[in-house]
Amino acid sequence: MARRLGVWLIGAKGGVATTVIVGILALKKGLTAQQGLVSQLAAFAHLDLVGWDDFVFGGHDIRECSLVHEAKKLHTDSRVIDEHVLSQCLAELAEIDANIRPGILLNVGKTIEGLADPALRNSKETQMAAILRAQQDIKSFAKQNDLEQVVVVNVASTEPILDAQSWPETWDELKTLLDGSGQIRIPSSSLYAIAALDAGLPYINFTPSLGSAPAAIGDLARQRKTCHMGHDGKTGETLLKSALAPMFAHRNLEIMSWVGHNIFGNMDGKVLDDPENKRTKVKSKDRLLREILGYEPQTHISIEYIESLGDWKTAWDHIHFRGFLGTPMVMQFTWQGCDSLLAAPLVIDLIRFAERAHRQGEVGLLTFLASFFKSPLGIQENNFERQFQLLQAWADGIE
Amino acid sequence: MARRLGVWLIGAKGGVATTVIVGILALKKGLTAQQGLVSQLAAFAHLDLVGWDDFVFGGHDIRECSLVHEAKKLHTDSRVIDEHVLSQCLAELAEIDANIRPGILLNVGKTIEGLADPALRNSKETQMAAILRAQQDIKSFAKQNDLEQVVVVNVASTEPILDAQSWPETWDELKTLLDGSGQIRIPSSSLYAIAALDAGLPYINFTPSLGSAPAAIGDLARQRKTCHMGHDGKTGETLLKSALAPMFAHRNLEIMSWVGHNIFGNMDGKVLDDPENKRTKVKSKDRLLREILGYEPQTHISIEYIESLGDWKTAWDHIHFRGFLGTPMVMQFTWQGCDSLLAAPLVIDLIRFAERAHRQGEVGLLTFLASFFKSPLGIQENNFERQFQLLQAWADGIE
Amino acid sequence: MARRLGVWLIGAKGGVATTVIVGILALKKGLTAQQGLVSQLAAFAHLDLVGWDDFVFGGHDIRECSLVHEAKKLHTDSRVIDEHVLSQCLAELAEIDANIRPGILLNVGKTIEGLADPALRNSKETQMAAILRAQQDIKSFAKQNDLEQVVVVNVASTEPILDAQSWPETWDELKTLLDGSGQIRIPSSSLYAIAALDAGLPYINFTPSLGSAPAAIGDLARQRKTCHMGHDGKTGETLLKSALAPMFAHRNLEIMSWVGHNIFGNMDGKVLDDPENKRTKVKSKDRLLREILGYEPQTHISIEYIESLGDWKTAWDHIHFRGFLGTPMVMQFTWQGCDSLLAAPLVIDLIRFAERAHRQGEVGLLTFLASFFKSPLGIQENNFERQFQLLQAWADGIE
Amino acid sequence: MARRLGVWLIGAKGGVATTVIVGILALKKGLTAQQGLVSQLAAFAHLDLVGWDDFVFGGHDIRECSLVHEAKKLHTDSRVIDEHVLSQCLAELAEIDANIRPGILLNVGKTIEGLADPALRNSKETQMAAILRAQQDIKSFAKQNDLEQVVVVNVASTEPILDAQSWPETWDELKTLLDGSGQIRIPSSSLYAIAALDAGLPYINFTPSLGSAPAAIGDLARQRKTCHMGHDGKTGETLLKSALAPMFAHRNLEIMSWVGHNIFGNMDGKVLDDPENKRTKVKSKDRLLREILGYEPQTHISIEYIESLGDWKTAWDHIHFRGFLGTPMVMQFTWQGCDSLLAAPLVIDLIRFAERAHRQGEVGLLTFLASFFKSPLGIQENNFERQFQLLQAWADGIE
Repeated sequence: MARRLGVWLIGAKGGVATTVIVGILALKKGLTAQQGLVSQLAAFAHLDLVGWDDFVFGGHDIRECSLVHEAKKLHTDSRVIDEHVLSQCLAELAEIDANIRPGILLNVGKTIEGLADPALRNSKETQMAAILRAQQDIKSFAKQNDLEQVVVVNVASTEPILDAQSWPETWDELKTLLDGSGQIRIPSSSLYAIAALDAGLPYINFTPSLGSAPAAIGDLARQRKTCHMGHDGKTGETLLKSALAPMFAHRNLEIMSWVGHNIFGNMDGKVLDDPENKRTKVKSKDRLLREILGYEPQTHISIEYIESLGDWKTAWDHIHFRGFLGTPMVMQFTWQGCDSLLAAPLVIDLIRFAERAHRQGEVGLLTFLASFFKSPLGIQENNFERQFQLLQAWADGIE
Repeated sequence: MARRLGVWLIGAKGGVATTVIVGILALKKGLTAQQGLVSQLAAFAHLDLVGWDDFVFGGHDIRECSLVHEAKKLHTDSRVIDEHVLSQCLAELAEIDANIRPGILLNVGKTIEGLADPALRNSKETQMAAILRAQQDIKSFAKQNDLEQVVVVNVASTEPILDAQSWPETWDELKTLLDGSGQIRIPSSSLYAIAALDAGLPYINFTPSLGSAPAAIGDLARQRKTCHMGHDGKTGETLLKSALAPMFAHRNLEIMSWVGHNIFGNMDGKVLDDPENKRTKVKSKDRLLREILGYEPQTHISIEYIESLGDWKTAWDHIHFRGFLGTPMVMQFTWQGCDSLLAAPLVIDLIRFAERAHRQGEVGLLTFLASFFKSPLGIQENNFERQFQLLQAWADGIE
Repeated sequence: MARRLGVWLIGAKGGVATTVIVGILALKKGLTAQQGLVSQLAAFAHLDLVGWDDFVFGGHDIRECSLVHEAKKLHTDSRVIDEHVLSQCLAELAEIDANIRPGILLNVGKTIEGLADPALRNSKETQMAAILRAQQDIKSFAKQNDLEQVVVVNVASTEPILDAQSWPETWDELKTLLDGSGQIRIPSSSLYAIAALDAGLPYINFTPSLGSAPAAIGDLARQRKTCHMGHDGKTGETLLKSALAPMFAHRNLEIMSWVGHNIFGNMDGKVLDDPENKRTKVKSKDRLLREILGYEPQTHISIEYIESLGDWKTAWDHIHFRGFLGTPMVMQFTWQGCDSLLAAPLVIDLIRFAERAHRQGEVGLLTFLASFFKSPLGIQENNFERQFQLLQAWADGIE
Repeated sequence: MARRLGVWLIGAKGGVATTVIVGILALKKGLTAQQGLVSQLAAFAHLDLVGWDDFVFGGHDIRECSLVHEAKKLHTDSRVIDEHVLSQCLAELAEIDANIRPGILLNVGKTIEGLADPALRNSKETQMAAILRAQQDIKSFAKQNDLEQVVVVNVASTEPILDAQSWPETWDELKTLLDGSGQIRIPSSSLYAIAALDAGLPYINFTPSLGSAPAAIGDLARQRKTCHMGHDGKTGETLLKSALAPMFAHRNLEIMSWVGHNIFGNMDGKVLDDPENKRTKVKSKDRLLREILGYEPQTHISIEYIESLGDWKTAWDHIHFRGFLGTPMVMQFTWQGCDSLLAAPLVIDLIRFAERAHRQGEVGLLTFLASFFKSPLGIQENNFERQFQLLQAWADGIE
């Protein structure tokens, strides 16, 4: 079945988005194998997922740089993308650049503002105007490219925590507050989510930012009969936690403390160097132990920006646990993974699964995608294997 | 419900057996909490498992030493057992010593022979005589202690590989060969298995030795309407593999090589320093990756005897995998666990679960115990979480 | 040659002091070998250093607890001291307790104040009064115990940074400011230093606190013809840095970043959990790379209080360096050492060497002791081997 | 001062040699900085060492492949050499290829024979004929390239151990045995050494093979008034040992065991996979601990060929030591270095220093080069810092 799927990337010039785009180009051209792509596992072969040739990219970004420049930086700074792959993708990257529109710069915190195109920084756009502009951008993209469907994915930098607990729970109530006299401050990630869902498009939040998490935005998704999921892609250290912690739980080994120290040097790391933004991330990483174990060991998570590492995220975890007769033992691991290369295939998987679910008529949170997220919305399951079983069961249910 | 359960330990003076006995004594006396005991998880609370007061210990051993001496060595050499726990268990240990009978020393390889009581080394016992003697020992133990049930567990040192492929598949055929003119050489672990199963007793093989694995011995179990399971307790590095490898598989991350280097200094380590015996172990550790991944990465497992480490088994694993766009990444872990303390609670769990299954009338291989073994008999599942789900499902099925 | 050496410990009930005392008692009684004692190396055998039997302990502490209680805690919380050693030292520990006097609680920061005996917290003692009281305590101790010599050692918790740059450079000037109307705030570590040096006694600062570092206090030492040295005992991660960094320098391997993450759970860790106090420590740990390498790589040092670790300090260091043709490579290490047991023998060594130097008539900073300190006073050498050569050369110069 | 220096590489198409050549080309062209080059440290700036433009390469190799092919493999298999560097060196590499002559294939063991050009395998060359042929090759090279000097360096694969203890101690005696009826079997590395030294050329043995170690070959060097040094370049794990072990020694920390596990996947690894060849290497790596510590801890060194790692040598070391009061502690490190890139700059350094020493008229073993070797000939010093001081002292002695 032929179809053309638009992928609208929020943070379209960032490391993850760039790697997603280069990755799809490389897959189209047969320059790479399929490592890292969950959706290419045999278990999902019958799903008739969107093929590499069907992807059409556009997006929003707040920075001025070019996709080509970003892709080259991934090669030179971090040795992430092979020169021979890169050189064969430059022409298409330049074309896709033309599909990237200026992003929304509301309530994103000072560090992200500091990265933005100065023109955006001085804009006085209201929240509602930003939503409408974003929607218009996506609609033009769909029309110009003759797309049957568009999926919107947030892969932008992490925003500072913004407490949405006091927000109203229905879309109708929230809507009336949107452009009231600043009664409510909505972060850009949520404005994009509103723009996408209001237009009936699936929305995926791959970041720890607020996105579509508030109840009122979920209500909007249901009203528009579309689907969404988030948040915070589970790419490295937390993935390992969700695979290892159940083992300790099932063996009744008492975890006394679990310390995780993360170092890396990409743009994401720079933004997380701001304590405001870091807090959002750490909170997302720290939840699952308590939920898997049923008790709360001492935990400490640090994330430090070490420039020389570029995109190579290195984590050291120290797990101090008590075995039989109360004896303390230790497990340590180090993880040396390339952040963008771990994230990008998951983003592609999420796009393909979300498109499939939407095609199937699914509405609301796609909880069967829990295995992809550090803090899956709408579901308590944090055990990785059981999360994966949910995905399998969903796939098994589709003929 | 009051009952008295005999536990007959093969290798009763070894590190694991000694820790099992001291552990049960400490639990009886309230000297320790319940870390490491799977059977104490909430999921199994309704099973009415055997309580700490119901355990009565006896066993076979080929060495001359005393249990008290072994227990003290665990304290002084490896700081495994606390002095304040140990000092309160010495009297009972000495009593239990009286229940330990000379073991079987047939087809165990030179290294194990070298450890044995010289009296045993010169014995000319036939295989059938050894079986009958072992049975008689267990019967006397049951009678003297007024036991309702006995479970036999092999926690002796690893024997060299002995190929059982040419053996007949039924018990009736095997039996006729037992004392023929040496046509078939049966290792001690299997002679004990035959002794136990023929007497209708559950048999658990916690070691990589042959034990009850041959089809003909399984046939005997079914004929005598009893149950058994093995083999090779999954305590450390392999446990981690069975929790981590599925994560790599589900994320489609291609494992290029997985290297595991194990160092430790207890008696088990000394025996495994003999290449013949080590081969049995390495074979058992190396299987599961292929089965979980569906392909065969390069693997290397080494096990080295480093005296200073005593019972502290340290493993370093280096996992070299390929992510998106073919980029190589690395995960490493180190595991610093105390071998006896990791094994002992699992032995206690297996005894309790096997007794429960036998009480329930289950016959043959207890495949729901797969999560406890490196090479579970009669079942292909090596994914730890899915193995644990089998245990849970079994427990859920018992009212 | 028989002599009796008084050792006056500041922080006499802390983990390091307690281990020093138990250690000397165990050495006296022949309960332990001599691992960790630099002064017992063959190279120093001719120095006629003070023997184990000659040590007599006293000291100051701001806490109410007892030495016996502290020693037991080291055993139970961290398995640091063997029960069989401990039980044979309890009587002497109780006796030494009587020699411990209430400490000075001026300008030590809120966290340390929070640990103190409430009686001390409410004291209105002036700085000069505190000095005189401390001197009086030491004199009484010397008299009561008929001591030929006393060495004063600071092993108390780390104070917040206190900038001494604006202080006058001579003792005469500083003295006049001591009890002026609060013109100058002197931390307790320096008040003790003044008390000791003014009495002509050698003073060693094993902590990162200010101690005898200010020029005016050094001037006092020279006036009183006594010696001193500091600061911050080099026990673990920094020791490794001073052994490894020269290797990278000599091989012209460019260190791009060096990240050190330290976790531990003793009292020292608790005090360092206060960012004010931690700053003093991190500053001391972070200097030497620049001095050894001649350039400034990105560094990050974190110190986190993880209660379950007790006295077991675990450090993970990640060294990212560039080799030939600019290729990035990585060295990582983990260090699992027992903080008190690493520090205590060095304290004993410093006491012995300082006593010997004083006996020899040396005056001022004992720079030949550089190898013992993270931030050796009065000398730029940070290469561990070259520091050790200074010690050897000093010893070689004494007949 | 302008001069042209011939560098004759034994194993000229191997990974190390290829990296040496590409490295010098990259330095000539200004494509790379000078990381990894000891001889570029400020301490040696006054020595007037040979410059990058002065290097002219030739050599022997037993394999048929081309240098260009080997260089490309380093890029594609191991990501060792950047594509942009490589592409600018291809023309010169092809030219240098023409200077590489067929090597000697006598007494090198089966594994190396298996790698050789079949034509060489069938040769019936005598030992003396091989020496003369090698000399002739070098002389032609010198003449054709108008060279003032040639330095010969062995960077070929490790040969099996060959015991030279029964050889005569003088060159005159050895010479008479060379072509006798097979009374003495001399490995190729030593035949090359004889060829070089007999021609008055400096010879460096960067491998653990025998080379110029035998007394009789040293005698030849002295007779011909030339210099030589070896053996086994100290590039990674052993380098770390020689920097770390002195730290443990100076702190009187008793090393109970030191385990080193090395994995890598280059040609060197393949050859070392043969137990005969591996033994030579392990012996060389294992000596220095005893010499630095003054006692013999338990050690275990393993070297395993893991294909996926290519040139990336990864070592895990586990150091189990005893501190104060006998308490066991642990240091572990992992080293992820690129074998060829660590070795190549040292080879360049050795060439430059050996040429300088020869220019200075030095004769015999160049023991001041000890810091470059795992098993430095003619000197017992294994402490890395003290070895480096020897180099500095030598340089300081030259005006």
